[in-house]
Amino acid sequence: MNINRQWLLAKRPDGIVGADNFSYSETPIPEPGEGEVLVRNLYLSFDPTQRGWMQDKESYMPPVELGEVMRAGSIGQVVESNNDGFAKGDLVQSIGGWQDFFIAQPGRGLVGLSKLPEGAPPTLFLSVLGVTGLTAYWGMLDLGHPKEGETLLVSGAAGATGSIAGQIGRIKGCRVVGIAGGPEKCAWLINEAGFDDVIDYKNEDVEARIGETCPNKVDIFFDNVGGDILEAALNHLNMRARVLMCGGISGYNATEAIPGPSNLMNLIGSRAHMEGFLVVDYLDRSHIAVPELLNWVNSGELKYEEDIQEGFENIPDTFTRLFTGKNLGKQLLKLGDPA
Amino acid sequence: MNINRQWLLAKRPDGIVGADNFSYSETPIPEPGEGEVLVRNLYLSFDPTQRGWMQDKESYMPPVELGEVMRAGSIGQVVESNNDGFAKGDLVQSIGGWQDFFIAQPGRGLVGLSKLPEGAPPTLFLSVLGVTGLTAYWGMLDLGHPKEGETLLVSGAAGATGSIAGQIGRIKGCRVVGIAGGPEKCAWLINEAGFDDVIDYKNEDVEARIGETCPNKVDIFFDNVGGDILEAALNHLNMRARVLMCGGISGYNATEAIPGPSNLMNLIGSRAHMEGFLVVDYLDRSHIAVPELLNWVNSGELKYEEDIQEGFENIPDTFTRLFTGKNLGKQLLKLGDPA
Repeated sequence: MNINRQWLLAKRPDGIVGADNFSYSETPIPEPGEGEVLVRNLYLSFDPTQRGWMQDKESYMPPVELGEVMRAGSIGQVVESNNDGFAKGDLVQSIGGWQDFFIAQPGRGLVGLSKLPEGAPPTLFLSVLGVTGLTAYWGMLDLGHPKEGETLLVSGAAGATGSIAGQIGRIKGCRVVGIAGGPEKCAWLINEAGFDDVIDYKNEDVEARIGETCPNKVDIFFDNVGGDILEAALNHLNMRARVLMCGGISGYNATEAIPGPSNLMNLIGSRAHMEGFLVVDYLDRSHIAVPELLNWVNSGELKYEEDIQEGFENIPDTFTRLFTGKNLGKQLLKLGDPA
Repeated sequence: MNINRQWLLAKRPDGIVGADNFSYSETPIPEPGEGEVLVRNLYLSFDPTQRGWMQDKESYMPPVELGEVMRAGSIGQVVESNNDGFAKGDLVQSIGGWQDFFIAQPGRGLVGLSKLPEGAPPTLFLSVLGVTGLTAYWGMLDLGHPKEGETLLVSGAAGATGSIAGQIGRIKGCRVVGIAGGPEKCAWLINEAGFDDVIDYKNEDVEARIGETCPNKVDIFFDNVGGDILEAALNHLNMRARVLMCGGISGYNATEAIPGPSNLMNLIGSRAHMEGFLVVDYLDRSHIAVPELLNWVNSGELKYEEDIQEGFENIPDTFTRLFTGKNLGKQLLKLGDPA
């Protein structure tokens, strides 16, 4: 059937993102023009940063327009190619969006297209080797400078980025403490990911537990959450601590400005710094990061989880899983197998 | 008369510091023991950080104890010396505190003693060449990395540290915008200190004016104030901006925790960082900073103001001038001339 299913941005979010922010649509499958490639999406990537793309606000990427297909990273397969660089059947990575099919013009526009290297499962290029894994890699290694024996605290520790950041800290010899929600995630962090200790923010006093689990204070705080957890961590910084601001998911669905930490001035006494970063600045160095991450995966040093939902109709609900803390590891949705 | 006048810490501050936090006392002038030196204070230094010393809180210095002489940097003159390194009449720098006389044990304890170099007025060693000037110097040059053509925004710009920080930025080729309170300070910044533009926070909309005066956004924000001014500045950061957290005087007298900036996550989009620092880490490099600062003063490139109050009885009120924004430049109090 000549139908391309799509989820469009119907309404900009005001507060918590829900299925009502999106509308279902069907259009004909597009025809690739000269130099263009038609791709069928196989897996979609869900990332907290996509919440920001839904807002009408200047950012590192233009906002998704109302009525436009919701933007998302994806793994797909070439269905038809008018481009010498790509052949039918190639597995490719792109920003295919919430739809079955899309047209890519390699080398032009926002929607780049790259062939997946062999030697790893395709979904890995959306998880450990995708933007979330790369965010962890560059945040930790370019900015965190982990040293043997230091203490690394990670919030959102069971998420796609936090889980990798913590393990990179472990590989570099840090004592690693993760903050995550609920016993299942905490157990995974200890038993699978090799974290030294864990704080269940849903059931424990985070501030008190940071004190207990980080007796030598915190040298690196890799923060995906912001809010109260950031404030708690700022009370336990070691001298010259690095606070890596990867994200602030606790505030992404807020309808009003949320006050920042009241103890920011602790940075002075600790001679500490907070640093914001975005993985987009590092994508041209992926040839350095990807092989190293893949080596760690293959050697078993780096564990990962992929939470793979299914069904086109479940795309919006899968997105909201990120903000209700349902996902363990990378949130994906499978649309189909390669042909 | 054998009287040593003193102001003691009588009550830890809860809210705004006032004269009632201190009690007047008289004791006999102490006798220097073996290796010790008796010093008479000539000038006292008043610094916002001293507010922190009054609190019963772990910090980079131990708290002043209740009943103890209030701690403060000072310039004095040796009255009697049992130490080969010092002779009667030497002008010295120390942490003499709010009293006429004190005993120093050179090389031991918190109260170090150093002879003033010649070639500069003594008060300069409490202002441009003292901790406030050195704070500006190292903050700007070790952490700010000012580059020609960049925009430097300074809060508390007419204060002892801010005024020097801004001028160092000017010397390094930055466009410099200062935030200060009232027309007198603003005029001084433009006419004397050579700032490019100025924002009067008492009479102008700081956020709107930052936008107007920093059309290329802010590359370095040297912040002495925190609070709303920090929040406003975080909305105008350039890519890879440096926010130097020198102090947060807006919150020093708060009785309750003041929320931090709600827009801290702007650091992510700007790939910016905030860094806390303290001059105590740099004091062993003063032999680098002091000659350069003095050269700038002597060449006329670096202007400074000293607000010199007089009278032992006025010491507590002089301290409170810092928190009501009364001082232009370095707040000092003169106790006497050298003998």
